[in-house]
Amino acid sequence: MRAAVMRNKTLVITDVPLPEPGPGEVLVKTLACGICGSDLHALKHAEKFVENARRAGGRPMDPGRDVVMGHEFCAEIVDHGPQTERRLAVGTRVCSRPVLMRPSGPQTVGYSNDTPGGYAEYMRLTEALLLEVPAGLATEHAALTEPMAVGLHAVAKARLEPDDVPLVIGCGPVGLAVIAALRLRGARPIVAADFSPLRRSLAETLGADVVVDPARRTPWESWREVAARREPGPPPPSAWAGAAAVKPAVIFECVGVPGVIDQVMVSAPRGARIVVVGVCMEADTIHPMIGISKELSVQFVLGYTADEFASTLRHIAAGAIPAAPLVTGRVGVEGVPGAFEELGMPERHAKILVEPWRR
Amino acid sequence: MRAAVMRNKTLVITDVPLPEPGPGEVLVKTLACGICGSDLHALKHAEKFVENARRAGGRPMDPGRDVVMGHEFCAEIVDHGPQTERRLAVGTRVCSRPVLMRPSGPQTVGYSNDTPGGYAEYMRLTEALLLEVPAGLATEHAALTEPMAVGLHAVAKARLEPDDVPLVIGCGPVGLAVIAALRLRGARPIVAADFSPLRRSLAETLGADVVVDPARRTPWESWREVAARREPGPPPPSAWAGAAAVKPAVIFECVGVPGVIDQVMVSAPRGARIVVVGVCMEADTIHPMIGISKELSVQFVLGYTADEFASTLRHIAAGAIPAAPLVTGRVGVEGVPGAFEELGMPERHAKILVEPWRR
Repeated sequence: MRAAVMRNKTLVITDVPLPEPGPGEVLVKTLACGICGSDLHALKHAEKFVENARRAGGRPMDPGRDVVMGHEFCAEIVDHGPQTERRLAVGTRVCSRPVLMRPSGPQTVGYSNDTPGGYAEYMRLTEALLLEVPAGLATEHAALTEPMAVGLHAVAKARLEPDDVPLVIGCGPVGLAVIAALRLRGARPIVAADFSPLRRSLAETLGADVVVDPARRTPWESWREVAARREPGPPPPSAWAGAAAVKPAVIFECVGVPGVIDQVMVSAPRGARIVVVGVCMEADTIHPMIGISKELSVQFVLGYTADEFASTLRHIAAGAIPAAPLVTGRVGVEGVPGAFEELGMPERHAKILVEPWRR
Repeated sequence: MRAAVMRNKTLVITDVPLPEPGPGEVLVKTLACGICGSDLHALKHAEKFVENARRAGGRPMDPGRDVVMGHEFCAEIVDHGPQTERRLAVGTRVCSRPVLMRPSGPQTVGYSNDTPGGYAEYMRLTEALLLEVPAGLATEHAALTEPMAVGLHAVAKARLEPDDVPLVIGCGPVGLAVIAALRLRGARPIVAADFSPLRRSLAETLGADVVVDPARRTPWESWREVAARREPGPPPPSAWAGAAAVKPAVIFECVGVPGVIDQVMVSAPRGARIVVVGVCMEADTIHPMIGISKELSVQFVLGYTADEFASTLRHIAAGAIPAAPLVTGRVGVEGVPGAFEELGMPERHAKILVEPWRR
């Protein structure tokens, strides 16, 4: 089958063997698969990606061997492997968390040497994880379940309280998913910032109330204006706090570039909670004393639970999470290397979908 | 009056003017004042201390001008200034949060150019903040209210849940205060680690259940053993989590030296909450990807609330917080510079008290 293969830090279009579904697994035809910022990182910083995963206690892919990436997919059941329940018939459109549950341990679909991800015509998936795509939901929107679930999870981990005023830094796909999840939860007003006019416009479409161009104005000024319109929160807890009572700020860091966490910590108001959703592969510098003197908290987040993934698919189908505006491009397998290049320019795109059967 | 003055990055013993109590203030005689690790930092890294405070939005002291440090004190009322209620009589022993509430804004007693801290014979304090020291409580133990309140606050900010297994990294005065607060709260078993035999022995005295010498064994191994004896916690939330279900770890970082936060993040189990109580004045390097892949959270903490301070004094008086073992030395004003040098050697001391009237 045709696939875009990560090999020696580049993407190669080539034929790879059709995967064989093992016990409890199904063979699926990939209908659409989003390109994730993490894939751009993994291609560019493969060693760091793997080293970090290993230090974190995981068993990562070997970047010296071929990998077919792609973990944001909608697919169609083609065949059932041995020991399957066949609850869903051949031809059913499905989504799944990108993980293959095997007796030897889980494999991440899209970051594995042993099973292909969505930048190929076929994949194998674990039957028990399959979710049927509701009738009437476009395939391309179902494919956005995975990235939108990241937003849902990040907002859940933020432990929002009624008085919180959220600020989203960076409106790429991750920031947009966070905005959609905040809106779904009714956490308003939402302040969002991005240098790209396209992304600012998408942020508005997805539900941001105030959208800032950081080149013209600091997001913090806008945040303070919006926060000042609300009732004051509790006074700061510290005896050493010199400042007056401030609103609780919840800041979603959705950029993932070295230096951003420190910038956010320096600018954040006292008592702010910073949720780090952007994936920074590099070593990064912070000033702990800044965190201490303002009693900041930093919550790093990753992925989503099974429930969050399933409810994201339902919310997209119900129109409660507006996924459609995110898709700004479509390519076939042959177009994957070019799409990776395009995505390096944030002005131009939010999400590019790979449709492996597109010619 | 005699005072140990911070001047040009050194400590000078000299005479300074007796402070005049302003409206709502009292003049007190300093009976005992603990030397805090922050004071050692402030003396050594004055510029960074001030720069960090300024970046955090505060109005710090000017290290180019004289400062009398000392913010962990027990004192005796000598005179009431104008517009005071005189609720407590002259001769009453008192504790107070180290802050002077003035119309122009709060001043931190011990880090101010305009009002002396406890390394001098007299101070002025805000009458409204005074807490009477209960009869029968030794002055030197009452003076430990401030550092022990730091532990109470850190534990409160940790949002402990019944299944959490706490690990305390570093058993200097801050770590010991955290251990005492964990014990007070019944959060057991408590694992604690320090290279110094004296500090490990104090950790046991204050209530640690398992005490580790990191030169012989990693604290994580001991933590895992202790955690394994308890019922398993909930499974990890992330879809991408490869590891089995783990206990929630709550790690108190009480060292405050560059590199420790990163070390803790690298070693911490998935989902761990790291509470940063140690004050690191330097820039520090972390690997955000480690935090992300394990969904760590980092809560920076500072100080305490008024309630926490008052209840710490009550708990010390009731014997529920064992403060006595912490005091490992006593000096007069003249002995302050030597005590600062001694405290650079963690094998030798926990808390040295300055008793300005000691000759």
